[in-house]
Amino acid sequence: MATPSLLLSRRDLDFLLHTWLDTGSLTRRERYAEHSRETFDAALDLSEQIAARHFAPHNKKNDQEEPRFDGERVHTVPEAAEALEVFAKSGILAATMDEEFGGMRLPQTVATACFGYFQAANIATAAYPFLTLGNARLLCAHGSPEQVETYVRPMLEGRFFGTMCLSEPQAGSSLADVATRAEERPDGTYRLFGSKMWISGGDHELAENIVHLVLARIPGGPPGVKGLSLFIVPKYLVGPDGSLGERNDVVPAGLNHKMGYRGTVNTLLNFGEGAAHRPGGEAGAVGHLVGEPHRGLAYMFHMMNGARIGVGAGAMALGYTGYLKSLEYARERPQGRPLTGDGAKDPAAPQVPIVEHADVRRMLLAQKSYVEGALALLLYCSRLVDEQLTAETEEERDRAALLLDVLTPIAKSWPSQWCLEANDLAIQVHGGYGYTREYDVEQHYRDNRLNPIHEGTHGIQALDLLGRKAVQDGGAGLAALGEAIGGTLERAEGAGGEAAALAAELRAAWDRTTAATARLWSTGDPSVALANASAYLEAVGHVVVAWLWLGQYLAADGEDAFLKGKRQAARYFFRYELPRTGPQFALLESLDTTVLETGPDWL
Amino acid sequence: MATPSLLLSRRDLDFLLHTWLDTGSLTRRERYAEHSRETFDAALDLSEQIAARHFAPHNKKNDQEEPRFDGERVHTVPEAAEALEVFAKSGILAATMDEEFGGMRLPQTVATACFGYFQAANIATAAYPFLTLGNARLLCAHGSPEQVETYVRPMLEGRFFGTMCLSEPQAGSSLADVATRAEERPDGTYRLFGSKMWISGGDHELAENIVHLVLARIPGGPPGVKGLSLFIVPKYLVGPDGSLGERNDVVPAGLNHKMGYRGTVNTLLNFGEGAAHRPGGEAGAVGHLVGEPHRGLAYMFHMMNGARIGVGAGAMALGYTGYLKSLEYARERPQGRPLTGDGAKDPAAPQVPIVEHADVRRMLLAQKSYVEGALALLLYCSRLVDEQLTAETEEERDRAALLLDVLTPIAKSWPSQWCLEANDLAIQVHGGYGYTREYDVEQHYRDNRLNPIHEGTHGIQALDLLGRKAVQDGGAGLAALGEAIGGTLERAEGAGGEAAALAAELRAAWDRTTAATARLWSTGDPSVALANASAYLEAVGHVVVAWLWLGQYLAADGEDAFLKGKRQAARYFFRYELPRTGPQFALLESLDTTVLETGPDWL
Repeated sequence: MATPSLLLSRRDLDFLLHTWLDTGSLTRRERYAEHSRETFDAALDLSEQIAARHFAPHNKKNDQEEPRFDGERVHTVPEAAEALEVFAKSGILAATMDEEFGGMRLPQTVATACFGYFQAANIATAAYPFLTLGNARLLCAHGSPEQVETYVRPMLEGRFFGTMCLSEPQAGSSLADVATRAEERPDGTYRLFGSKMWISGGDHELAENIVHLVLARIPGGPPGVKGLSLFIVPKYLVGPDGSLGERNDVVPAGLNHKMGYRGTVNTLLNFGEGAAHRPGGEAGAVGHLVGEPHRGLAYMFHMMNGARIGVGAGAMALGYTGYLKSLEYARERPQGRPLTGDGAKDPAAPQVPIVEHADVRRMLLAQKSYVEGALALLLYCSRLVDEQLTAETEEERDRAALLLDVLTPIAKSWPSQWCLEANDLAIQVHGGYGYTREYDVEQHYRDNRLNPIHEGTHGIQALDLLGRKAVQDGGAGLAALGEAIGGTLERAEGAGGEAAALAAELRAAWDRTTAATARLWSTGDPSVALANASAYLEAVGHVVVAWLWLGQYLAADGEDAFLKGKRQAARYFFRYELPRTGPQFALLESLDTTVLETGPDWL
Repeated sequence: MATPSLLLSRRDLDFLLHTWLDTGSLTRRERYAEHSRETFDAALDLSEQIAARHFAPHNKKNDQEEPRFDGERVHTVPEAAEALEVFAKSGILAATMDEEFGGMRLPQTVATACFGYFQAANIATAAYPFLTLGNARLLCAHGSPEQVETYVRPMLEGRFFGTMCLSEPQAGSSLADVATRAEERPDGTYRLFGSKMWISGGDHELAENIVHLVLARIPGGPPGVKGLSLFIVPKYLVGPDGSLGERNDVVPAGLNHKMGYRGTVNTLLNFGEGAAHRPGGEAGAVGHLVGEPHRGLAYMFHMMNGARIGVGAGAMALGYTGYLKSLEYARERPQGRPLTGDGAKDPAAPQVPIVEHADVRRMLLAQKSYVEGALALLLYCSRLVDEQLTAETEEERDRAALLLDVLTPIAKSWPSQWCLEANDLAIQVHGGYGYTREYDVEQHYRDNRLNPIHEGTHGIQALDLLGRKAVQDGGAGLAALGEAIGGTLERAEGAGGEAAALAAELRAAWDRTTAATARLWSTGDPSVALANASAYLEAVGHVVVAWLWLGQYLAADGEDAFLKGKRQAARYFFRYELPRTGPQFALLESLDTTVLETGPDWL
């Protein structure tokens, strides 16, 4: 590609994948033995090319002409269908899967980088295949061989698309209140009745069929989340030979009209309530049980964990492309003069590009520290997926699983918070132009605002981290994280100089993390422990990203501008960002109960 | 009004205006002697009523059907014209002016509260009269009697609307680069040539005429901002008898399409370039010099200072209404169960309203502390305007002017930052619903995102505070602020108990403010001093708002739920917000030069 795509920085990807994460070492493991730097590069090249040529050009149109429901069908812009066809044919969708599914066993670490290009180019169109992939992976893990044959294969070929149907109008964050009912029929199939809310990709004509994965309740099961079962509910019934049959009784009741992310159709779906679509004349939507009854939520978490990391990756990608665009703008836009030196405040001197102004550089450096920090976090998590898949010992696998588990709420939330902040700064760098729809950054900001909400809000991730991940198995997750951080600290301390100074800051912050965790749980009262869970999530997120920046600092050994920039962004993060955790830890250590003591009627 | 309007809280306004600020005392001053609590209440009642009935109902429509330019005329939704007619007839626009202009000498303190209702209801429609009022006030101060008669009177009657034309495509923040040219004609009028960018209200059919106030350069004057003169350029020429004549050569070259604030038309305007509109066949747009040549920027600052406080007030109002709406939602939306106590985690127990969840209460308390803090800040600044107008001694007037001067960048920036954050939290409280256009809060968030940009960006305000206001006149502005803060500290220390404890925190933060200011300017290098001006602006803003919260804490004496809520929000601000300044002051004290040392090519 002649001109850079302004989607992600390939130089940064190469640095993170190879210099920092040594992704090449994965090729020494059997699963990835067919791979090499060349195959990785080819996958990245192809992704950037397709993303830039087929996804980016209709990103604005996706926003301006959002999906429309005419009462029968959902209409989307034709460019989305074309892009998705190119994507499916490229083999990228199935790339991480085994050969039997048309895949090429691409490491997840590389795939995350590849997928990032599509998310940066057009997050709304990219959402369809990524939901589909999550769906397919869940079924590979928990579905029957017939289900895999019938639904997974066409999904990985891009002929069927997938969804996940959890929320209901009365049950958003509270899945215990899911009420959709699934009644068994003598033939072993089920009939579902209920309404599902916020279903991305819930209806459209972009694929031949839609495979809904639906949480529902088999009558007689336990109450709450322990009584949820998982069902495949296809839009069109599929015959034993794979042929499409009748339309199932799954009917969009309307579309949700969003602030951003508009190109991804989002629907309220009714199951078993549409008189017009009753397969065989019998009431209910035909569903097929996945795995065992009442274990649906556990299966769904398989998809949800992947989806949470995918949300973080999407947030990162939107932040990243916004950064590159605002950087380009700052280098080209002349405005004002320096405060000191030649031409200072002299109206006769030519204006300078705004990148020369300290506050603009601050906004760019902040963005760089957020988006490159987020990319490192996502690649690190993806690396853990690869380590789980290829571990040679159980210990190695457990360690990777524990780390991934504890990092998942951070990988979801941190980019959703800070790469949205990056988009905010990208607008600010553009000044008034950034607030107009003529430029891209306002859309990135609107698109990115979804990320702190879907797949578990910020508050839910905070409860997951502090209430579950930080304490389960006697705190093994945090211990594994501490060990990983400790390894980097030792290397930095060994290097001495500035690296050792940064390490001292990080060590203090990590010690404070473990002390605050212990203190919070010292009272035995979960209400008190969890009252400031969001502050905990944010503080630990910053500590984790500071650790990843220290690792990058150590890896950025050299004097070219890129490596200097890496080290400078690391310094920025330690000087401007890590100190934010000081007041957060102080609040946590004080066991502050301000919010608990606030009467709802005082507000 | 039977149901609360969810625009601003009248209880809070009454508390701030009367219990906290003792606005009644203004009626003891001659200018306001005709007023009383009853006239103030009547103005507030009327404002809330008109805002709720005529402004709020078309707020969404303003957004959905943004102004359209057909090449000849700009079209806006008809409801905006109707609302503005009701507004003009109500007398609220001119309320603060003297009787001779149809005003009633309403104190600015009360007017800011009244105007807040309109900004909360429909910021885009409200922008037209508020720009007009700023324009009229500038001309009252600096225009000739004829100019006042010809332009101000019809503006205050709502027949003409006003604009301010500063920016140009190549000159946004850098007004030294304004290039619009004004050539004098033998009759003493001028002909203007140039393009102005980002002109809110730049063209429309909402008023009989539009009065543009335009910065332009008379050839031969000094370069830079010292060579800027101010001109009245009406859309239609006005005869000596007030009759409208020919169309002037001011032509919209296109509209800017924004992320939010869409109902306020925003144009690129060409002066003296439209062959179709040449008054008398002569080239150029007819303009009338205001005051003396080359003093235009000083005059314009009269309007800009008011506009900056108006931007802060708009940000506050959007934050405030978002808070009230998310509070209502949180009280009504059932979801999930408590972590402990009755029904904890029991799926058979009924769901509780989300206001019962700690993290939701945190998000509401944060919003409350931001929006009520911002309202206090804006009312305090307005009070200073009233004190300037009615000062009995020169010292009193100087003190008020100094304080207003140093607080203006904070009154502009702090609400723009934190009430946008409040809108972000309002979305988050609503969950997925908040991200849809079915609810109001996503629009408030989009509308509010303009506020850190227009009337001087966040970075420009930071330079204004640290580079000018904090140091000019030997630091007299900060000294005046320190004295005002000192008064509250003494009262709090005298009260003892929790008040004294809060005072100790604030005193430490204020001491750090003055120390950091001295340290920053100790090097003699403005580049170093100003490298982190944004952090300085943010830290000082939080210190100022903490001071206003301490004042509210002291005034909130009583046990009803509202007063308990006031004290709790004050505690929240001191426990969660003021500590954010710790790392900011540490950065400033360290004279950090990270951004200065960053090469543009490292990014």
